Amino acid sequence: MDQRKSFGSDNHAGAHEAVVRALAQANTADVPGYGDDPWTGRAAAALSTAFGARGGAYFVFTGTAANILGLSLLLRPYEGVICAETAHINVDECGAPERILGSKLLTVATPDGKLTPELIGTRLGDRGDEHRAQPRVVAISQVTELGTCYSLEELKSLGEFCRAEGLRLYLDGARLANAADHLGCSLADLASWADVLSFGGTKNGAVGAEAVVVMAEDLAADVPFLRKQQAQLASKMRFLAAQFEALLDGGLWLRNAGQANAMAVRLAEGVAGIPGVHLWQPVESNAVFASLDPAHIERLQRDWHFYIWDAPAHVVRWMTAFNTTEADVDAFLADIRRTAGGRAAGK
Amino acid sequence: MDQRKSFGSDNHAGAHEAVVRALAQANTADVPGYGDDPWTGRAAAALSTAFGARGGAYFVFTGTAANILGLSLLLRPYEGVICAETAHINVDECGAPERILGSKLLTVATPDGKLTPELIGTRLGDRGDEHRAQPRVVAISQVTELGTCYSLEELKSLGEFCRAEGLRLYLDGARLANAADHLGCSLADLASWADVLSFGGTKNGAVGAEAVVVMAEDLAADVPFLRKQQAQLASKMRFLAAQFEALLDGGLWLRNAGQANAMAVRLAEGVAGIPGVHLWQPVESNAVFASLDPAHIERLQRDWHFYIWDAPAHVVRWMTAFNTTEADVDAFLADIRRTAGGRAAGK
Amino acid sequence: MDQRKSFGSDNHAGAHEAVVRALAQANTADVPGYGDDPWTGRAAAALSTAFGARGGAYFVFTGTAANILGLSLLLRPYEGVICAETAHINVDECGAPERILGSKLLTVATPDGKLTPELIGTRLGDRGDEHRAQPRVVAISQVTELGTCYSLEELKSLGEFCRAEGLRLYLDGARLANAADHLGCSLADLASWADVLSFGGTKNGAVGAEAVVVMAEDLAADVPFLRKQQAQLASKMRFLAAQFEALLDGGLWLRNAGQANAMAVRLAEGVAGIPGVHLWQPVESNAVFASLDPAHIERLQRDWHFYIWDAPAHVVRWMTAFNTTEADVDAFLADIRRTAGGRAAGK
Amino acid sequence: MDQRKSFGSDNHAGAHEAVVRALAQANTADVPGYGDDPWTGRAAAALSTAFGARGGAYFVFTGTAANILGLSLLLRPYEGVICAETAHINVDECGAPERILGSKLLTVATPDGKLTPELIGTRLGDRGDEHRAQPRVVAISQVTELGTCYSLEELKSLGEFCRAEGLRLYLDGARLANAADHLGCSLADLASWADVLSFGGTKNGAVGAEAVVVMAEDLAADVPFLRKQQAQLASKMRFLAAQFEALLDGGLWLRNAGQANAMAVRLAEGVAGIPGVHLWQPVESNAVFASLDPAHIERLQRDWHFYIWDAPAHVVRWMTAFNTTEADVDAFLADIRRTAGGRAAGK
Repeated sequence: MDQRKSFGSDNHAGAHEAVVRALAQANTADVPGYGDDPWTGRAAAALSTAFGARGGAYFVFTGTAANILGLSLLLRPYEGVICAETAHINVDECGAPERILGSKLLTVATPDGKLTPELIGTRLGDRGDEHRAQPRVVAISQVTELGTCYSLEELKSLGEFCRAEGLRLYLDGARLANAADHLGCSLADLASWADVLSFGGTKNGAVGAEAVVVMAEDLAADVPFLRKQQAQLASKMRFLAAQFEALLDGGLWLRNAGQANAMAVRLAEGVAGIPGVHLWQPVESNAVFASLDPAHIERLQRDWHFYIWDAPAHVVRWMTAFNTTEADVDAFLADIRRTAGGRAAGK
Repeated sequence: MDQRKSFGSDNHAGAHEAVVRALAQANTADVPGYGDDPWTGRAAAALSTAFGARGGAYFVFTGTAANILGLSLLLRPYEGVICAETAHINVDECGAPERILGSKLLTVATPDGKLTPELIGTRLGDRGDEHRAQPRVVAISQVTELGTCYSLEELKSLGEFCRAEGLRLYLDGARLANAADHLGCSLADLASWADVLSFGGTKNGAVGAEAVVVMAEDLAADVPFLRKQQAQLASKMRFLAAQFEALLDGGLWLRNAGQANAMAVRLAEGVAGIPGVHLWQPVESNAVFASLDPAHIERLQRDWHFYIWDAPAHVVRWMTAFNTTEADVDAFLADIRRTAGGRAAGK
Repeated sequence: MDQRKSFGSDNHAGAHEAVVRALAQANTADVPGYGDDPWTGRAAAALSTAFGARGGAYFVFTGTAANILGLSLLLRPYEGVICAETAHINVDECGAPERILGSKLLTVATPDGKLTPELIGTRLGDRGDEHRAQPRVVAISQVTELGTCYSLEELKSLGEFCRAEGLRLYLDGARLANAADHLGCSLADLASWADVLSFGGTKNGAVGAEAVVVMAEDLAADVPFLRKQQAQLASKMRFLAAQFEALLDGGLWLRNAGQANAMAVRLAEGVAGIPGVHLWQPVESNAVFASLDPAHIERLQRDWHFYIWDAPAHVVRWMTAFNTTEADVDAFLADIRRTAGGRAAGK
Repeated sequence: MDQRKSFGSDNHAGAHEAVVRALAQANTADVPGYGDDPWTGRAAAALSTAFGARGGAYFVFTGTAANILGLSLLLRPYEGVICAETAHINVDECGAPERILGSKLLTVATPDGKLTPELIGTRLGDRGDEHRAQPRVVAISQVTELGTCYSLEELKSLGEFCRAEGLRLYLDGARLANAADHLGCSLADLASWADVLSFGGTKNGAVGAEAVVVMAEDLAADVPFLRKQQAQLASKMRFLAAQFEALLDGGLWLRNAGQANAMAVRLAEGVAGIPGVHLWQPVESNAVFASLDPAHIERLQRDWHFYIWDAPAHVVRWMTAFNTTEADVDAFLADIRRTAGGRAAGK
């Protein structure tokens, strides 16, 4: 096993040691299963408070699961979800929204992974037409899959638009912590216009835990049944809750996100001066999208783990994580510089 | 929090310390996500070997998830699953088979949670009739939900019947380890007639991990996609795999099951002599089903955690776990004896 | 093609000539599709009036489709349907409720195909338990699949029970006309406790048309979308509506049902005196269930078309239809008498 | 009711009188239900012969139903359907593919509603990636929703591409008759590269009947069960079959399509010389897509029934049908001319 830092994904990192320690500490006496335990009570309450969520917070195992559960609270069978073409629910969940929810995704092309009222408006023409899936939910990702963030003003604008149009707002927050750090705002600020959102633990340093946060109280009654039906009810729930407790304790979640974000900025700033390397998206979280010579990509991939995002456009994605260090970034930068420089010189 | 041992469920126990230690040890360098890591490779290979599974072993988070994934490998949309009325898939999964699989369960009443060729035969009359869901899979639980085990002879008889009838055999092995201990046989023995089965880690001492074991190679190709679609693909898969590695290491899984089973036998033998307490099912795993005076049930539940199984019949379920001690059982027995004796005397 | 009357099913008959004539008459000028035409407007209004339905009446093609659409108005994903084991939705729809609705059927054994508050009560124990599909709809068939009818008192008792328990009542009325004739009551009487019901045209003399009748106005908004999504929106809707107009015109539907019912009574009375033939269910519609010597069954099936209902019990089902004549019944009776008598004599 | 010809849709027409006559003729003696009758046998056999279909032909009620049934023969749960963005299955079925099939549609933008190997190729990049729905079926419409036809060469090219890539080819033939007329080829020619296709009766002059034609024998076994489960099994099937018999008899289907097509050509040629009216798509069937001044559209819609296809682009759709006459077209043309001329003069 290669011991170099992976820039492939923030889930290539292990867990933060405080999370692992919390698991061990939660391994004490017998407690009832399925969430009727102190850890779950405390962690769910802490999340509800942090988000201002009147409908509670519920733990599940994966980001896809959080999205499916969250969306299932908001949709009738003939209603669809407006989302960006690049949305995780559209691209990276193997058709789970269609199969498990049974819902149509009404996709919109975007330059930066972000929806706008104008873009959403292009999918609203069919309302009332029985032949068409009815747009009902707007699903955004914060951070988006392209590493960009909605500003609080943009969120407000989307939220007001959705309310005016009778649309629900769902927020895929697999990297919500990174957005909070980047925008310098609270979780409640990020959630204030959402009906339901997810809050990702796994990419933030958990072993594997996500939360579904329900802002409106009247949506909460369905959650326990839908979570169980969707095979996401943990019997030893304390071990999911304890992970969130550890992340929430003393703001570890924000420090973890802040470290990852800072390292992405360091990486982006480092490549800024390298000839032939171009940033494709603004760096607003822990992702750096850059284009470079395909031969350089190939060379770098021999030693470093990262993914090609768009092969024809020669765009790669470099992700940092809570455990990325300055030394990791600098070593990678040195190699990029060497590769790009050498090849450039050789041309 | 009450520090007494729970007899409510084997998932009220925490995890075995070796499992928690394994999680910490797996928390090392970066590795690729989604199972492309050494822990997953090793644990899956070890399970495949132990079961003689040519289609591989795959990790998921919950028992319901394992059942859904396993069954989804075996069914076309119009095919149904013959199972006992008491089966977990019928009773305890909030309709997940119907909603997520979309499949009809063809239930059969049983005295002891066990299917027989004769009982299965009662659901085979509609084959070829387009108006009827077509029986295709026989799903059994080993250990059953009533704590009983199929003997190897019974498994063989079911397996031969299924093959002769063109039926697939699925085995819900949430407590398979307990069956292996009770029957004194190998995992491969238990699996030999099954097409797909689950192997439960959670009730055996894991933090939360189940395996889907695919016996036939030709069923394996669908698994990765269906697992992802069913929201059960762990990004940090090593932390699921490491739990199984710990359980497999040195036969810990079997010792855990053995301890739980032995404590159930101790409990059953202990109550055998108590007037007014009657065993309802033979004790063949880590469950003791007993009937007793409802007033005694109420009194015992003030101090001990366990569930009423069948209120009209005054039947309770007492579960032991890997961490149940002789002292736990003896303390509980003393209280049962005191309660039953006292009340009986007072009548 | 055998020209004898079939006693196999009321759908073996063709259509009433008035229905076919109505189709021809509706084949005039161009009209908008999907129900925006005069026939649909008139027929739906007439049905709404006849039933006292504030949510409207909607046409679909088959009885299964009507049941699925009707139930889909009443269920959230984790909610189940309490029904008799013999219910059409459980036995004769190839798993459509599970696959298309995704809903669990909570079945109850009955002696006569009829649910009672007591029987329904046996499936209510799991409310509030997140592990269990939540009972939400009680689905009854009127006429039942065993040819029996709920009296108006029984309907009232069920309706009051459902309202007290927060359950919805769905009524499968594939043979509702036969119930109206048998009970001598109005369609509104039959529907008064139901939230949604179906009204069958096909078995009543239509070419192929069923109506979903929505009693409560607040359930109506979903219907157009769900009907379209379930592939039941007729583009040339006038041809469904015209069939119902013909049946409603001058009470043809009731005369058709009355003729079928009377012929069943004639048949039942005729066999009453035949040795070895025993009525299995009371004759309250157009079905006669009788048990007789299996050799006699076999002999009769050489010349007459009817189905064996329960082979081990030697029970057959004889259905009459709107076009069954006294001569048809008498010819069949003569053969039954001859067969039963001859064989009995020969024994 | 306005007695003018509708140019709104080919389903605004009633049925061809021969079809209605056939219904009346089929209304004779009792026959078994669900297709076990002479009409169904003959019509299905005739279709199988006409298409060269070894898997048989099966009747359903609507075009959406035909598409869902046809596609359901070809897909596993995690497999998706590549189709044009404009495809009926994507736009006009209220999410039925996602809800009833549970399958993801992998859409492609096209200029003319037609897929090409190149366009299909853009959706093949994710094969083997468990995070992505796997492309498995290519679904084309012949005639497309934009009134265009694939040439036989284009079909061959698509067919060869699909076979080389391991993709199945589904053909939505709601207006297949119009394609046969336009291309001057046989139904077998049109079907030769398809695995499954639909053949529309309704728009061709039926009361309401569609056929699913299964080219490969090994796909046929599932059809009866899936059709029933999808609520499309007609009990009085003879009345569906008789419609197709009438259309097939003496080539009525082709004459009907030919009349509709000829009238569309007449309309297109008529508007060709009108200033301000521009054809948007080539006229290759019974649809004319044209752009014109929005004020003229509004004026024409006061007297004529037709739909705006693309409001921002001022594109309207004019459909002809089997019953459109030269006089209908000429009257409409006169009004278009008057409207466009008057306005143009006034500018």
